[in-house]
Amino acid sequence: MKKIVKQDQDVIKQHNKQMILDIIKKQRPISRAELAKITKMSATSVGRFVSELCEEGLVQETDLTSSGVGRKAVQLDIIADAVYTVGVEIEKKRIKFGMMDFSETVVEHHRVAHTALESSPEETAALIGREISGLIKKCKISPEKVVGIGIGVPGVIDYEKGIVQFSSTLGWKNVPFAVLVEQILGIKTVIDNDLKVKILSEYLYGSAKGSTKTTLIGIGTGIGSALIIDGEIFRGGSNSAGELGHTTLDPNGNLCECGKRGCLQTYVDENALITEARRVKEITDIGQVFEAARADERWAKEIVSRTALYIGITINNIVCMYNPDTVILSGDLIENYTEIVDLVHEHCEQVIWEPFKGTFRIIASELKAEAIVIGAGALALQHFAPLAGADFA
Amino acid sequence: MKKIVKQDQDVIKQHNKQMILDIIKKQRPISRAELAKITKMSATSVGRFVSELCEEGLVQETDLTSSGVGRKAVQLDIIADAVYTVGVEIEKKRIKFGMMDFSETVVEHHRVAHTALESSPEETAALIGREISGLIKKCKISPEKVVGIGIGVPGVIDYEKGIVQFSSTLGWKNVPFAVLVEQILGIKTVIDNDLKVKILSEYLYGSAKGSTKTTLIGIGTGIGSALIIDGEIFRGGSNSAGELGHTTLDPNGNLCECGKRGCLQTYVDENALITEARRVKEITDIGQVFEAARADERWAKEIVSRTALYIGITINNIVCMYNPDTVILSGDLIENYTEIVDLVHEHCEQVIWEPFKGTFRIIASELKAEAIVIGAGALALQHFAPLAGADFA
Repeated sequence: MKKIVKQDQDVIKQHNKQMILDIIKKQRPISRAELAKITKMSATSVGRFVSELCEEGLVQETDLTSSGVGRKAVQLDIIADAVYTVGVEIEKKRIKFGMMDFSETVVEHHRVAHTALESSPEETAALIGREISGLIKKCKISPEKVVGIGIGVPGVIDYEKGIVQFSSTLGWKNVPFAVLVEQILGIKTVIDNDLKVKILSEYLYGSAKGSTKTTLIGIGTGIGSALIIDGEIFRGGSNSAGELGHTTLDPNGNLCECGKRGCLQTYVDENALITEARRVKEITDIGQVFEAARADERWAKEIVSRTALYIGITINNIVCMYNPDTVILSGDLIENYTEIVDLVHEHCEQVIWEPFKGTFRIIASELKAEAIVIGAGALALQHFAPLAGADFA
Repeated sequence: MKKIVKQDQDVIKQHNKQMILDIIKKQRPISRAELAKITKMSATSVGRFVSELCEEGLVQETDLTSSGVGRKAVQLDIIADAVYTVGVEIEKKRIKFGMMDFSETVVEHHRVAHTALESSPEETAALIGREISGLIKKCKISPEKVVGIGIGVPGVIDYEKGIVQFSSTLGWKNVPFAVLVEQILGIKTVIDNDLKVKILSEYLYGSAKGSTKTTLIGIGTGIGSALIIDGEIFRGGSNSAGELGHTTLDPNGNLCECGKRGCLQTYVDENALITEARRVKEITDIGQVFEAARADERWAKEIVSRTALYIGITINNIVCMYNPDTVILSGDLIENYTEIVDLVHEHCEQVIWEPFKGTFRIIASELKAEAIVIGAGALALQHFAPLAGADFA
């Protein structure tokens, strides 16, 4: 529904200034004349906005001048160290950090061990606070330049209120985690579901660059998905869209911990494979299944092949529902046992509904282990960087 | 991704004028003072836009004045017969028409028999042309007031290009149907998938009013779905999002006409019920199954109950994927045999994943048989009414 918002001079000014800054960021270095050409603004308007951005310490003239024909023009660039954000990923056994500058480059990575289920949310927030303080010192950044923190959390997240509603990985229920972190460091904090952060990352910097409708499937100890449409994360009514794990694959199938029959996660995730393998052999670890499959043991090959078939079916179901142009396969199961991707492609020939064949591509995650840290930094930049949120679109 | 579009005075003016017109439409009658209050515009600006809208013949002062305290104010209303659109629904055996005025009221309904599979697209377009000409005459509308035609078509539709890519109901493949109709009448025409038109209708005027994330499930001779988010139809990459019928319900299940196993449509749609019933009894019609179920015949009760269970599972899968606040059940199967809705509710208790319980409501379609005609008229109005498309949001 159209929002009832009057538009006036201030709104236009903010919009156009943000647009100039975005173009400088994406096409740097760039001259004032090129900016005028791209934006169709007058030289005067461009000049005024550029001056303001220079005064605000976000943009500077570089030593470079444009090549090519005609008069040489001074080139403009953003000031990469004008502003920083910190991207954080909370996993079961460790926390990862990345310091991202204004050019959206992660200038420093950091990770610490951590036992999620044995720590209270307050202890985890305190740990994150200490580590980020250390990271800021290590990078020799003046603290006021760090404008925001973004955190990717496995679970159901109330993104707007900053609450972890439910996370079985962390053992948390209704934890106002954004505020906990904010209070420790005095830095604005945004949290989101880890797969939603991951797809943002792949869309901005990884395998989904240039895609307009992307789905990401994450398979590890659990299975989930995320969707991004024209640059916007698809959230559904309460930020829970994409909860693949408890869709029904077989109404008469395996009993799931949720009490229903035939949930997808009972067929595809790492726990499902281990449960299945144990019908035959006392294994402790998913790696043993793939080792046995590589050694041509029939039971293991059957498990791996069936998993690939079910991932193919999952892709078909996703494509029927979302009609994306790109499907990204990600998560530990995919990234550690890459042979499964070829098998998935083979099965897809049979399980994708004919009219959708050729309408999308299946690719592997490009940023892999760093995707969430990078995406979380970018999420914080989108929220808290100067001019951010100025746009009313 | 942010669009690179400069904003200037003209853009603001169009946006604000459109906003004034929309508010008059929704809250009519309304005074200039109320408009200023809602939009936060100055009295001068409101006055100027209202004058323009009056000059353009879209808005007029009414005889009414506001009640309540204070000085009486002249009320404004849109002119309902300023502009018309025609909504059309093409079904297998008939075509329905509705003449919609600028107040979004269908002032005249009309339907003709038609045998889709025996007619060429050109013959169908010619029939639609003749019937609309007749309808315009019958309603005594001057033809230039009819600014657009909207058509809901069962199948995969390239909405932007106006092409029916594939419709098994009509037996068409890659038919540029919008142009065919446009050429006959000289009236701009937009076509879309029937369920997408139907959900627009329910969102604007029916059971989903006020919902922000709505899914519609349509079950008849086939099963499909549509999604609307914040007033926008969710289209996916090629307008094919929501193709439920060929998602897999059981990897080892029934063979589908598409060559895959276990497609949802082989369990839930009317053909599936007939096929299942014929294992026991030579029936010719879905009504016989429900008759037998009402007469307490065990085989029929089993089929109806299983269908309700599978519809429940479908709702769970939809809710996990889309996370809507409202699920609308529609289509012949639901509308002709309403007893199934209670059964679906009963099964949902078991098959909805716990975290989603209470996050959405399940309701029946309100506009039923007229939904597509009304939605198609509204779609044409959104596309072709004066000021439409002026907004850049």
